[in-house]
Amino acid sequence: MVRKIRAQAASGPRHRAVIQGIGDDCAVVRPDANTDLVYTTDLVVEGRHFTRDQKPSDVGHRALARSLSDLAAMGAEPVFCLVSLAVPADCAGTWTERFYQGLLRLAQRHRIQLAGGDLSRADQIVADVMCCGSVPRGRALLRSTARPGDRVYVTGPLGKPWAKNLRPEPRIAEGLALRGIATAAMDLSDGISLDLHRLCVESNVSADLRSAAIPLARGSNLEQALHGGEDYEILFTARRNLPGGPVPIGEITKGATGQVRLDGNILQAKGWDHFR
Amino acid sequence: MVRKIRAQAASGPRHRAVIQGIGDDCAVVRPDANTDLVYTTDLVVEGRHFTRDQKPSDVGHRALARSLSDLAAMGAEPVFCLVSLAVPADCAGTWTERFYQGLLRLAQRHRIQLAGGDLSRADQIVADVMCCGSVPRGRALLRSTARPGDRVYVTGPLGKPWAKNLRPEPRIAEGLALRGIATAAMDLSDGISLDLHRLCVESNVSADLRSAAIPLARGSNLEQALHGGEDYEILFTARRNLPGGPVPIGEITKGATGQVRLDGNILQAKGWDHFR
Repeated sequence: MVRKIRAQAASGPRHRAVIQGIGDDCAVVRPDANTDLVYTTDLVVEGRHFTRDQKPSDVGHRALARSLSDLAAMGAEPVFCLVSLAVPADCAGTWTERFYQGLLRLAQRHRIQLAGGDLSRADQIVADVMCCGSVPRGRALLRSTARPGDRVYVTGPLGKPWAKNLRPEPRIAEGLALRGIATAAMDLSDGISLDLHRLCVESNVSADLRSAAIPLARGSNLEQALHGGEDYEILFTARRNLPGGPVPIGEITKGATGQVRLDGNILQAKGWDHFR
Repeated sequence: MVRKIRAQAASGPRHRAVIQGIGDDCAVVRPDANTDLVYTTDLVVEGRHFTRDQKPSDVGHRALARSLSDLAAMGAEPVFCLVSLAVPADCAGTWTERFYQGLLRLAQRHRIQLAGGDLSRADQIVADVMCCGSVPRGRALLRSTARPGDRVYVTGPLGKPWAKNLRPEPRIAEGLALRGIATAAMDLSDGISLDLHRLCVESNVSADLRSAAIPLARGSNLEQALHGGEDYEILFTARRNLPGGPVPIGEITKGATGQVRLDGNILQAKGWDHFR
């Protein structure tokens, strides 16, 4: 299986910075000068993030999409990923192969190289995907740099029903376009009520949202849009109105650190806490 | 728990290259000029690599040690790690805290910063540790660069009984000392019969070992030294005899690619295959 995955990876995308991929103790990367590198890792666990009924290629897609979405929110260009996969014996063949097919199809689209990983047996499928991306030096979009007076934006509609979003598209292009425009950004993965709270905590500010301005995904309501999870959109702030672009849904204000208000009332964070 | 881990990590070692640690969508790293970065990731799974009877701090130590051992074999200086941990509900408190204590104690000794990770629930404990290290540009020790005529070395005794090696020490200092001396190197994690075979495949060479020269760990026999796993030693090759240093256990030869001979007889690889 290791040989098969290596062959699958070899037919996948390459990145010029990766000078040694799968096949040694470590992958070796030669960063460009004047570049910062950003790193994130995301777990998916059978029974919590997906079920055995789902297509393994969709599970592979989602496992990579979660990490890519974090790169997007940093304004990063994808470079390489490492994939660790633990599976029960009956998933060690076809299931694993198709998991990698789905993952590598998404990798191809975003030009991210599968440069290594690990394989093990377990009673339950667990996949951990680490992604590395690059940004021009000092230009990574952080959570901690929003300032009072900034507008609050999202890159797309919120509250997408999970079951209809099996192959989410990380907003890589949108993240790249936000370089030099966004003052702060983060991945919307746990619902805007919790994620905007987190951004406000890191930036030591508070925020005012207008419910009428929040874009709803087809079939979702305001409650789902506020407290749903895994939207795969970027929440960001910018100093000014963006001409012809996304519509602002609120403003950053001085107020109590971390407080988010909706139409003037305090909004309790009810988003998904993975470790409650 | 996320807050607790963040506090634990904040009291752990820092690396000057890490300009944003835990607290954003991604960690941000600013590499030195003329530096290559190396990356590895290793899974440990309850019931396969450890049991619930073991001290959680020992499990945390081992989870990091496995990845650090890969950095050592590249001749790399540790920079940062990302830790993904999936645990059952009854391990979400004290067990998790002690796991990180053990991990961070080892991290402190090798000056590697815990810069991020992920947490989830699962039925079985699974930990995935990604380590990043740095080497001067073009100086990473690879598996693919052994040449006929090179001597074969190991950094220490082989066949250590797993149960007596609960807090293995990765050979970071030894790996750094091998820069400019080793022609090829790899981590001994699956027994020398399998690992030397792999090194020979990557280098397109074969190897001759002398059984009498192989250093045995206390209480182990030749069979265990040849086919045991998780020795946490570095297998390496060098052009010449190393004065006053490690004793050569064999030579790299032209022969059939990947073939390893012991005292002139073909040695079948019987090491641990994690995905058999």
